[in-house]
Order: sequence, then structure tokens, then C-alpha cells
Amino acid sequence: MGRGLVTLLTDFGMGSHYVAVMKGVILGMNPAAQIVDLTHAVPPQNVRQGAWLLAEAARWFPAETVHAAVVDPGVGTQRRLVYARMGGQHFVAPDNGLLDLAARRTPPEQLITLAERRYWLSEVSATFHGRDIIAPVAAWLSRGLDPALLGPPQDRLSPYEWPEVVQVPGRIEGSVQGIDSFGNLITNITAEMLQDAPRDERVRIVCEEHETLGIYRTYADQPAQTFIALVGSSGCLELAVVNDNAAALLGIGVGAPVRVCW
Amino acid sequence: MGRGLVTLLTDFGMGSHYVAVMKGVILGMNPAAQIVDLTHAVPPQNVRQGAWLLAEAARWFPAETVHAAVVDPGVGTQRRLVYARMGGQHFVAPDNGLLDLAARRTPPEQLITLAERRYWLSEVSATFHGRDIIAPVAAWLSRGLDPALLGPPQDRLSPYEWPEVVQVPGRIEGSVQGIDSFGNLITNITAEMLQDAPRDERVRIVCEEHETLGIYRTYADQPAQTFIALVGSSGCLELAVVNDNAAALLGIGVGAPVRVCW
Amino acid sequence: MGRGLVTLLTDFGMGSHYVAVMKGVILGMNPAAQIVDLTHAVPPQNVRQGAWLLAEAARWFPAETVHAAVVDPGVGTQRRLVYARMGGQHFVAPDNGLLDLAARRTPPEQLITLAERRYWLSEVSATFHGRDIIAPVAAWLSRGLDPALLGPPQDRLSPYEWPEVVQVPGRIEGSVQGIDSFGNLITNITAEMLQDAPRDERVRIVCEEHETLGIYRTYADQPAQTFIALVGSSGCLELAVVNDNAAALLGIGVGAPVRVCW
Repeated sequence: MGRGLVTLLTDFGMGSHYVAVMKGVILGMNPAAQIVDLTHAVPPQNVRQGAWLLAEAARWFPAETVHAAVVDPGVGTQRRLVYARMGGQHFVAPDNGLLDLAARRTPPEQLITLAERRYWLSEVSATFHGRDIIAPVAAWLSRGLDPALLGPPQDRLSPYEWPEVVQVPGRIEGSVQGIDSFGNLITNITAEMLQDAPRDERVRIVCEEHETLGIYRTYADQPAQTFIALVGSSGCLELAVVNDNAAALLGIGVGAPVRVCW
Repeated sequence: MGRGLVTLLTDFGMGSHYVAVMKGVILGMNPAAQIVDLTHAVPPQNVRQGAWLLAEAARWFPAETVHAAVVDPGVGTQRRLVYARMGGQHFVAPDNGLLDLAARRTPPEQLITLAERRYWLSEVSATFHGRDIIAPVAAWLSRGLDPALLGPPQDRLSPYEWPEVVQVPGRIEGSVQGIDSFGNLITNITAEMLQDAPRDERVRIVCEEHETLGIYRTYADQPAQTFIALVGSSGCLELAVVNDNAAALLGIGVGAPVRVCW
Repeated sequence: MGRGLVTLLTDFGMGSHYVAVMKGVILGMNPAAQIVDLTHAVPPQNVRQGAWLLAEAARWFPAETVHAAVVDPGVGTQRRLVYARMGGQHFVAPDNGLLDLAARRTPPEQLITLAERRYWLSEVSATFHGRDIIAPVAAWLSRGLDPALLGPPQDRLSPYEWPEVVQVPGRIEGSVQGIDSFGNLITNITAEMLQDAPRDERVRIVCEEHETLGIYRTYADQPAQTFIALVGSSGCLELAVVNDNAAALLGIGVGAPVRVCW
């Protein structure tokens, strides 16, 4: 029984006792597990934001980490629960798109539909599969269980319709992919897509009715309250208000269109 | 010195540095302790909600877990601090009703009034017994200290006046016992009490001026925004608004009367 | 590789996935690390409140604890990152005043400017040095690395202009130093400074237009909603509203002047 690393991502809210319940189940099955919260501040039922946060955070963890993710508006219905091995890590989640963004970055090496009830709690409720199925399966995986025992293989993950980025010479059209805890707006426009764009004021970035010139290196390059664009720590174009919360201040949400032209 | 599991429940608020202070004290005394947050989002001084959250979460943890709970409006007054062994687990808390609900489910096997100052910090403040008494006692317990050394035995826990559930043929009258992090209203009406009630629209559930027919299996059984009743993952009747926050939306709080009739 | 204790304090917000990213980096480099959150609820870019929370919480942790702190409005500019050994513990932070209050309590035994890139992530972004520099350095320290290897020694910490406390016979003039998670107002007036002041109603405490007589032992000494002064668990004079949030209720913030006279 190793000291397996297990992360939890849910939409239960920070301070939810349901998170503690999942930890209790895991530690009861693997006392040596090391549990880390990815976040529990996913907006309720927001699979899209959950998928983004999971993909952003999971890649910084070591190989063999078990990521257990629960954003599950369809709990108790016929949606499947799935195991995926991706980038040398283990993921357990509802098969509702929550793993889709991570899978676009590092395609799954193994996919299993959770079906073997011997790895679940003996009683399974209709409303809390995070506790009754995902937590015990994560505990088994953290103890080194062969994932193939969890159920039959499946061909692919349930996809999620992510907005595409349009690239033409002199113009890129993307959108806000996620909002971080500072209210910065992280787009789906990567540094690679921007390699032909100038960094100075010849480049114009437009998001809804807001517009800024130039792509900066860091927040402190401009005075407080300035609306700026920069390539952020996730490697994507990011829109920020220096020392303030861009999402709240400008009223911009996930999905807002972002246009870069030069 | 084992790798003892210690949980913390307080009303300090998520992100309170006082929680970190308690962890520092525990890890200074038992570096091998494994600390898990039950929750720190108990509404300030709300012993009733704290007791409910503690009872709901603690039972999912393994035997020998040490639960340290601090919701303590009477800190620095003559109220006692107590150790209780219940269901094979250890609890340390103010004796103000905080343990009462857990004790109704699994009656205490051992009760000790905390009195032996050698297991406390050498200096005890008037306002933070969580740090000065409860944390060090939890650390000692996580190292396997015999609880009998903590002080003299006591006969019973200080009781809390929980509202009773009234059951007559065709009618059950209970109340909202707790509100979870989704805003679902969890009642004190158990699945067992409901065994004679139909599940279909012949059963009527009334809470304040809100009413719904039928008891569902899961949230996804009805469209978004519907006010529904279901037997939730805690084994109790639960009132929810599908994909929304029932407590906030309907303005219903802990203690609101709930009537089931058929 | 020991089971090194690492704490994290940031202004990323509770539930920020950036906190999880730092934990992933640390655990990837030292799987045996034990990570504890000091708090992530420092108001954004508020070095002053961060310094206070760090100084208040860190001192309750055992020797050799590694404290990694990130409140870093100047990230990506020429400000230095610093290692400090203080009170037998290790601190890693931007050298912007964040360590200044802890250093006033226990003067640094060793100061190093972080410069040796071999202990950083191989790629360093312009906006997230918490992940790219502070987390890996904390991981190295938790594995027992000699801090002298991190870079050249430096003479002193960048100072922070803390308001001074004025003491004359019969009068002390200080200010609100920090606000805790209950909304209590913790001043920079210590119990030692108050040793000549009476505790009864002959002593008058004034903060902005609010005034109270006497210094109490604990919150429960007065009825709910009363504005009181007491020597709190941090050893400093504290202003509180019994069973309520003084900061929110009275609209008092960090820096507000506090006068004690008798």
C-alpha cells in the first residue's frame, strides 16, 4: 500500500462537508493516501469550467497521481462514470465532458467504463456517486489497483463542444476559456498561435466592447486599473485589469469572444 | 508515534489563519499526524449546524480518527471541554451540544472532562481554547494517549434541544436539520420514517408556503428550477431546487417545519 | 528525503487552482512533503495584511517548517525573491515587506537572495513565480537543501513602513494591524504595553468614532452585539463586537487609529 497521491476537484463549494466525506472514504480504504484539493470552487454543474480547471491544474502533478473529479449534473441517470489514463496520470470522473479538455492535450492511453461494483461502496445512493463510487475507486487506484479490473474498456470519451479558434493571416478569433481566482480572463488563444503577431501597439485585442493595444509580459508593466493583454502563466493569451478583477469589473464571462488583429 | 488521522471542524471561516495555527500546534506535537478539514464554514457560533455537519461527516471516517471540533460561543467561561469515544472514534469539543447529534446516533462509550493541564499548551488564553487545549489534546490522542488520562470521567454529554419528529398514520412533522453547500435543505425525517409513505404524487411535502408532490430518486429526475423532495445521500428527506440553491431561493433556514402527508 | 512540512500563504483566494498547481510542483519534487495552507484569503496584493497573517500563524509551527509566501504585486519586475531563516524556520517569499513583521519578532539568522536557477523550474514565466521559483525552492528546502546554495547572502530584508505605537503616561496610540476571520480588529498594542493600564472602566478605548470602556478577558464577558476591547489570543489588544463581525458592522479597516487612555 503506497502513499498514493489523490486530488479532488468538485463543484461542492469550498468548505463543503461532502468533500470531507469523500476524504474519509478514501482514507478509510487507504490510510497512506495523500489527498490534495485541486479546487471545489467550480461553479455548480459547470462542466465547462470544471474541465478547464482540471486540465490546467492536473498537468503540474507527478505521474501516477489519481485525479478524482466530480461535476455531475446527471448523477443517478444513465450517464457513465469513466477511468482514463492520460499523460501517465489516472483520472476518474463522470463521462460528461469533464475530462475532454485534458484529453485534447494528452490523448488517453486507456479508457475504462466503471462497472465492477466490488470496488464501490456496498451501498450506492442515487445522488452522491462522488462518495459511493468515485472516492472508493480513487482509493483503490492509489493503492495500485490495475485499472483494467474496474470495468470494460471504452472507445472514447464523451466529447464536449469546445469553441474552435479561427486563425487567418493578421487575425485570430477565440474566446474566454476560463476565469481564474483573480478574475483574469484566460482565453483559448495559445502563445504558439500568436507567434506571428507583434507584441507592441500594432496588435489590437478586442473582447466584447473592450479593447487594448499590445501584448505585455506581466501585470506590473502597466499602472493599476489598466485593461491589458498578456501571455499568462498557462501559456495562453489572458486579459486582465491590473490589480483588479477583470471578470467582475467588465462583466465578461466564460465564452465571451476575443479577437486579436494586427 | 503513529500516523494518526485528525479532523478539524470549526466556525472560524474558510481561510482563517486560526485553523492553520491549530494545525501548527498539532504537527509540532505529532509530525506524523494526517490532518483533514471537516469544514470551517459552520456559521459563527451556530452549535446546531456544527453538530449536524459533524455528525454527517464524521461517520464516513475510519475507526480511531480523532475529531477536533470548535464552535464555542462560551469560550473562557465555565463551560466544560469534553472527550467522547463514539463509534470507535475520538471526539474532542466544548460540551455545549456540539457532540449531541453524533451521540444520538452512536451512544458514547467513554466520556472524560478535560482537566489534566499537562496535555494542554503551557499557557492557556481566555479566547482560543481550540489552539491551547483542543489541538494539543487531539495531538496526544493521535499519538495513542489513553483518553482516561485527560481528566475525570463524566456521566453524560450536555444535551441539545433538538426538535422532535412527530409521526402519526399518514403524516410526519419534522424540520430542516441542516443546509448543505448546494443550499439543499436536509430534514430530520429519515428514510425509515418514510417507509409507509408512497413515492408518487399521492404524497405531499410542505415546507413553509412551498409544496411539492412525490418523492424522487435524484435531482435529474425533474427539470431545472423545479422544487422537489428526495431521499438524499444522508438517508434523510431533502428538499431541493434542481440545479439551484433552495435555501437562498426560497428563503428557508434551519429549523423550518416540514410536513409530509399522504 | 524527509517528511518536510511546507506551509503556503498566498493572495490567490480560497479555492484557487493556482494553489493546487504549487502543491503539484512541490509534491512532484518531494513526494514526502506535508503541505499545510496558512491561508489563501489575503486580500489581493495586500502585502501588509499578508505579513501580519504570516507572522501570526508561522510562529505556531515547529522548527524547520518551510513557509512559502506569495503576495507579489511586483511579479516579473526587478524585485528580489528571498530566503530567510528566522526562529529556526525557513521562509521563502518576495522581498517586498512580506517577511518584515515576522523578522521584527525573530530577527533573521540567514538571508539569501534567490538566484541559482538550478533550483527553479526549467522554464520561468513572467507572472507566476510562486509556481516557477518559490514552490520548487520550498520543495528543495523541505528535502533538506542547504539554503546557502540558493544564491548570494543579502544584508537585510526590504523593510515595510509599519505604523509606530506612541506610548506616553496614561495614553497609548496604535492602530488596527489585522482583521481576523471573525472580523475582530487586532491592534498593534501588545499586552506588555498595557501593563500599567487598568482593566476596569477607568480605561477608555477609542477607534474612529467608536468607544468602549474597560478591557475584558473574553467575548462571553459581555452580551451579544456589545462593542468590547480585550487582550486576544495573539497577545494584542483586540476590538470585537460580541457574536458579530466588528470590521463589517463598524466599517473599520486595517490601519484605523486606536487610542487607549486612562
